[in-house]
Amino acid sequence: MAKHLIGVVGGSGYTGAELLRLLAGHPEMEVGPVSAGSNAGKTVESLYPNLIPYAGRTFAAFDASAFAGCALVFAGLPHGESMAVVPSLLALGAKVVDLSGDFRLADAESYRTWYGKQHVAPELLGKGVYGLTELYRGKVSEATLVANPGCYPTATLLGLVPLVRSGLIDPGSIVVQAASGTSGAGRAPAPGLHFAHVDGNYSAYGITGHKHVSEMEAELSGAAGAEVRISFIPHLVPMARGILATSTAQMMPGVGESALREALMQAYESEPFVHVLPVGALPQTKATNGSNACHVTVRSDSRTGRAIVLAALDNLGKGAAGQAIQNANLMLGIPETAGLTAAGLYP
Amino acid sequence: MAKHLIGVVGGSGYTGAELLRLLAGHPEMEVGPVSAGSNAGKTVESLYPNLIPYAGRTFAAFDASAFAGCALVFAGLPHGESMAVVPSLLALGAKVVDLSGDFRLADAESYRTWYGKQHVAPELLGKGVYGLTELYRGKVSEATLVANPGCYPTATLLGLVPLVRSGLIDPGSIVVQAASGTSGAGRAPAPGLHFAHVDGNYSAYGITGHKHVSEMEAELSGAAGAEVRISFIPHLVPMARGILATSTAQMMPGVGESALREALMQAYESEPFVHVLPVGALPQTKATNGSNACHVTVRSDSRTGRAIVLAALDNLGKGAAGQAIQNANLMLGIPETAGLTAAGLYP
Amino acid sequence: MAKHLIGVVGGSGYTGAELLRLLAGHPEMEVGPVSAGSNAGKTVESLYPNLIPYAGRTFAAFDASAFAGCALVFAGLPHGESMAVVPSLLALGAKVVDLSGDFRLADAESYRTWYGKQHVAPELLGKGVYGLTELYRGKVSEATLVANPGCYPTATLLGLVPLVRSGLIDPGSIVVQAASGTSGAGRAPAPGLHFAHVDGNYSAYGITGHKHVSEMEAELSGAAGAEVRISFIPHLVPMARGILATSTAQMMPGVGESALREALMQAYESEPFVHVLPVGALPQTKATNGSNACHVTVRSDSRTGRAIVLAALDNLGKGAAGQAIQNANLMLGIPETAGLTAAGLYP
Amino acid sequence: MAKHLIGVVGGSGYTGAELLRLLAGHPEMEVGPVSAGSNAGKTVESLYPNLIPYAGRTFAAFDASAFAGCALVFAGLPHGESMAVVPSLLALGAKVVDLSGDFRLADAESYRTWYGKQHVAPELLGKGVYGLTELYRGKVSEATLVANPGCYPTATLLGLVPLVRSGLIDPGSIVVQAASGTSGAGRAPAPGLHFAHVDGNYSAYGITGHKHVSEMEAELSGAAGAEVRISFIPHLVPMARGILATSTAQMMPGVGESALREALMQAYESEPFVHVLPVGALPQTKATNGSNACHVTVRSDSRTGRAIVLAALDNLGKGAAGQAIQNANLMLGIPETAGLTAAGLYP
Repeated sequence: MAKHLIGVVGGSGYTGAELLRLLAGHPEMEVGPVSAGSNAGKTVESLYPNLIPYAGRTFAAFDASAFAGCALVFAGLPHGESMAVVPSLLALGAKVVDLSGDFRLADAESYRTWYGKQHVAPELLGKGVYGLTELYRGKVSEATLVANPGCYPTATLLGLVPLVRSGLIDPGSIVVQAASGTSGAGRAPAPGLHFAHVDGNYSAYGITGHKHVSEMEAELSGAAGAEVRISFIPHLVPMARGILATSTAQMMPGVGESALREALMQAYESEPFVHVLPVGALPQTKATNGSNACHVTVRSDSRTGRAIVLAALDNLGKGAAGQAIQNANLMLGIPETAGLTAAGLYP
Repeated sequence: MAKHLIGVVGGSGYTGAELLRLLAGHPEMEVGPVSAGSNAGKTVESLYPNLIPYAGRTFAAFDASAFAGCALVFAGLPHGESMAVVPSLLALGAKVVDLSGDFRLADAESYRTWYGKQHVAPELLGKGVYGLTELYRGKVSEATLVANPGCYPTATLLGLVPLVRSGLIDPGSIVVQAASGTSGAGRAPAPGLHFAHVDGNYSAYGITGHKHVSEMEAELSGAAGAEVRISFIPHLVPMARGILATSTAQMMPGVGESALREALMQAYESEPFVHVLPVGALPQTKATNGSNACHVTVRSDSRTGRAIVLAALDNLGKGAAGQAIQNANLMLGIPETAGLTAAGLYP
Repeated sequence: MAKHLIGVVGGSGYTGAELLRLLAGHPEMEVGPVSAGSNAGKTVESLYPNLIPYAGRTFAAFDASAFAGCALVFAGLPHGESMAVVPSLLALGAKVVDLSGDFRLADAESYRTWYGKQHVAPELLGKGVYGLTELYRGKVSEATLVANPGCYPTATLLGLVPLVRSGLIDPGSIVVQAASGTSGAGRAPAPGLHFAHVDGNYSAYGITGHKHVSEMEAELSGAAGAEVRISFIPHLVPMARGILATSTAQMMPGVGESALREALMQAYESEPFVHVLPVGALPQTKATNGSNACHVTVRSDSRTGRAIVLAALDNLGKGAAGQAIQNANLMLGIPETAGLTAAGLYP
Repeated sequence: MAKHLIGVVGGSGYTGAELLRLLAGHPEMEVGPVSAGSNAGKTVESLYPNLIPYAGRTFAAFDASAFAGCALVFAGLPHGESMAVVPSLLALGAKVVDLSGDFRLADAESYRTWYGKQHVAPELLGKGVYGLTELYRGKVSEATLVANPGCYPTATLLGLVPLVRSGLIDPGSIVVQAASGTSGAGRAPAPGLHFAHVDGNYSAYGITGHKHVSEMEAELSGAAGAEVRISFIPHLVPMARGILATSTAQMMPGVGESALREALMQAYESEPFVHVLPVGALPQTKATNGSNACHVTVRSDSRTGRAIVLAALDNLGKGAAGQAIQNANLMLGIPETAGLTAAGLYP
């Protein structure tokens, strides 16, 4: 059977490169056009010496017409750039998985509030499916446009949504503290991402008003059936990949650890990528490196009546490129796990 | 003027070695006997090649009589070992700064609950002064035995106590998430501290029932004038040194960021080691490496009504050996900052 | 077609775990018995939380009879233990890829000299094929026992052998300096592998008499047609995976960079895993992480008349488990690249 | 006694900041004017949150007249910028320690060859003293202008010069492989210094024609009494600070390890900062972090007749700011160790 022809827009960022890495081993997808912005004209290998399968290949400047014939295009552009490009890709008849935040929110006003700019394709808002696969598998399968979730929201929501849906925790008491490796901040050099600065350093950043709060609150509100507001405090860890979200919330009266754990087990018992850890184990980011896995668990602190929910994943894997391919598999009728079976790289 | 003769028990652990490093540059202290446990007989340099000032010197096996004549002894032993040794040091007439958890709690029952063993010197419980210097400077100055606080409690309490004392936050809503470099777990090799395991890895551990909760709750209860229970969730960061405590709590009605900040500024305006960061800055662990500094700040999240309090320090510095020397300076009538003026090592 | 049944002895070390990770995705191999030493009885997931495909599975204590029926067994035991086990595996009719140093040398006296012990299966010495696949592909295909090369020798020899064979460099002038991530030293905790010690630290070790010198000199002597002695100086880098070997040697009269480069290009133009980098690029260990790739290049320093040869690989990949599977593929008549096509994990 | 007034030009780079850190604790120097280039106008604390002693202070734009009255000025500018500024500082009557490469070479032609530009103050070439303190202590004491050595040359030369001077090794056979933490490459963000790129990565760079070769060859030629050419191959290590130089050279006939070691011991027995390690120990970069120490040792490989010389230091300490202060102490008649007594920060 012929492979599906796949395009990648924004292929030279970390997310784009991770897509290329995974697609090189995908049994039913074939990489066609790959474009980049300021890196157009450079060879893939010069930026990503790991991507030997693409040796000799060059990032092209973006030209929508080059993507004609693609069954599906991944858009790995920064927030604000994607919305200018996605409509032209859809117009070609391609399905699109957009990895930016541009199509995750329901309306233009929310977008302006959280992203600080005017949306240029508001007609598409609310038409894309929020691609947290485990929650929206059916809709994703039928979607033309999927808005791939952010890395922090994927980790946070996979841990919290089953507990909120089941009414086991008080949604108004949710505090999420999360920590990420630096690849989540992208490939562009910056003082705060300089090796000598980050190495041996740990700090919080963007502790109020992080863009990802918007999609987390939207999903948690949906799960709770009422408006939910959360505190979300991200941190930067001296490591390249990985996210751990550690969330606390007040348990509802009478709830204990077994009920919390049962809710997670039921939600994920058939899931190929979300793994509820054995009793006693806690998630470690490194166990998920390079994979599409998310490791979750929950504990109760009986002294304070709080639940502690932990979820780890690779911000470039299940938090971005991996989940994007998982969604694309569904959109194209390919087995959901195709190209995503690699175990995490540890040690 | 003659220098004060100082002893170090448990000198071969990370805390002991940091004491030796700082004491080598102390203008009014002179290092006398230094003992170790299983490392007795080894040269200082073989374990700590940085400690060239001690070249040729060997760790001695512990013998209390060797510490006769010491004005002050630092005990850098593990929890459970220190209580067996401190009485004999006090009996020699030496003042003692104990860096373990053995004398931090007020009674033997609390000790059994949190440390899981019977206290062997219960008569000293409640007699030592809790050496969080900024809170108990007066008592420390007059103390014979100081129980040096844990690293996590120092960071957590320096951030929270002024806000709790001022009634600005609801003590019942406090959730502390903290992260530490691995030196806090000591020098003994262990699978969870193996380089190949920790590098590129981030995880939580001991998320309910960490020993340090006991002293944090005791101090916060004192500050609140009522019993306080907190959630405390520690994490391990792939770095050698540094702690960041990120605490959240509900603000009391009418409280905003300026009141929170003002409380910190007032508490620390004259303090040589606790530095309230300029508006806009967030603490970074690396800025405190090797120093006795603690960097704190506070923010308010008006969307959720929560305060976010952040404090960073070096777990071996202000979190252990640095604060121990700060206390010893007071106990011996030496200027409080003597030997502790080095700025943090960055980058 | 039925998959080949594969056994793994010594499955709980880093090399064993990397074998399991790669075998989980191998299209024509199926993992059968997996044994461990002191970790027998533990679940795979408890030691390797990344190996979700093996969830529920337990490391067995070694029992040779359990490996009956295996087409091939990988032995991932330490030096000195493997020679006691391999004969019993061969006796079962299984082919064996041994990843220790026990069968790499030609005679028992060399073994005693370099490994410091008596060989217990000297009848097998010289019968195993040295599994540097690119040099011995034909012999490996027909082998029953393959002695998989060491990580340092693989990197060093892939760079140097083509130049020595071609007579382009003076073999008597070879100096190899190499650096490795810590996983090469294994999973057992040790002071020198403690995170707080290794992090931010760089040092040499074993700078004369490293065991790997023996196999490097044997191969280089073969390539030169005369006895060759080299200096080999390994270093430890604060990273988990990766080896870079940087070798210098005097160029023979009239030789320049183009001839050196041409020799490498010719040697590896059809090789799937050895990649001669484009002009101007230098190998980076991270580009090979998790893959079976080896990246090589050569430069000439006309001021001194020396060639500089650089080769990078993943010590657990092409330096151990990856090459072991590459050899096993050949031994079983499977396509050489099966199960080994993943690109390196970067960033 | 009044402290000496000290100026710092180029104070916002890593070298400048390390000077400020060390000067804050110097008993006989007082920091006066501090200028920066593009960072002029920023607060010291905003760039270096560790430098609390400078809280409230701002980097000034460079204006030579501001340095009038300074007893000595440290110039921490990049190569090529320093030569435009140093003459004006000397004209004010200040002594100058220049940390760039601009005054290390003897003539303008060498400068053009190695630095690729025309020297703008050629009249000063050969007038500055090369500030490798242990070799030129007398000249430094009388100097008005000291050219502070590069970080790699300091490590390399401290190890090799005593052996070359004594005629124990063949200077024509010297191959230096060295490795550095990333702070040696400065504070400016760049793709090759991005955390996600460097973390877990090890690579060589600039392997022929590194600028530092020129000063190493000049010094080694002086020590040998004949022109010496060396191979020098630098590497980048995923750590912030530290350099290790591992050099090999053929031993002269009859020379063994004891003679090599003796030469180092004699050269450094009275030196406060150069420490010949005990037999059996090898230098580790981390042991020197934040200090002015250099740790050296030598081994012989009798199989190949080569000496292996190893030297470790902190590239910002003895490799830059520390040695600059050591030189300044001599130039101002202050005890040589003043302000430089801190032991290395480990772990």
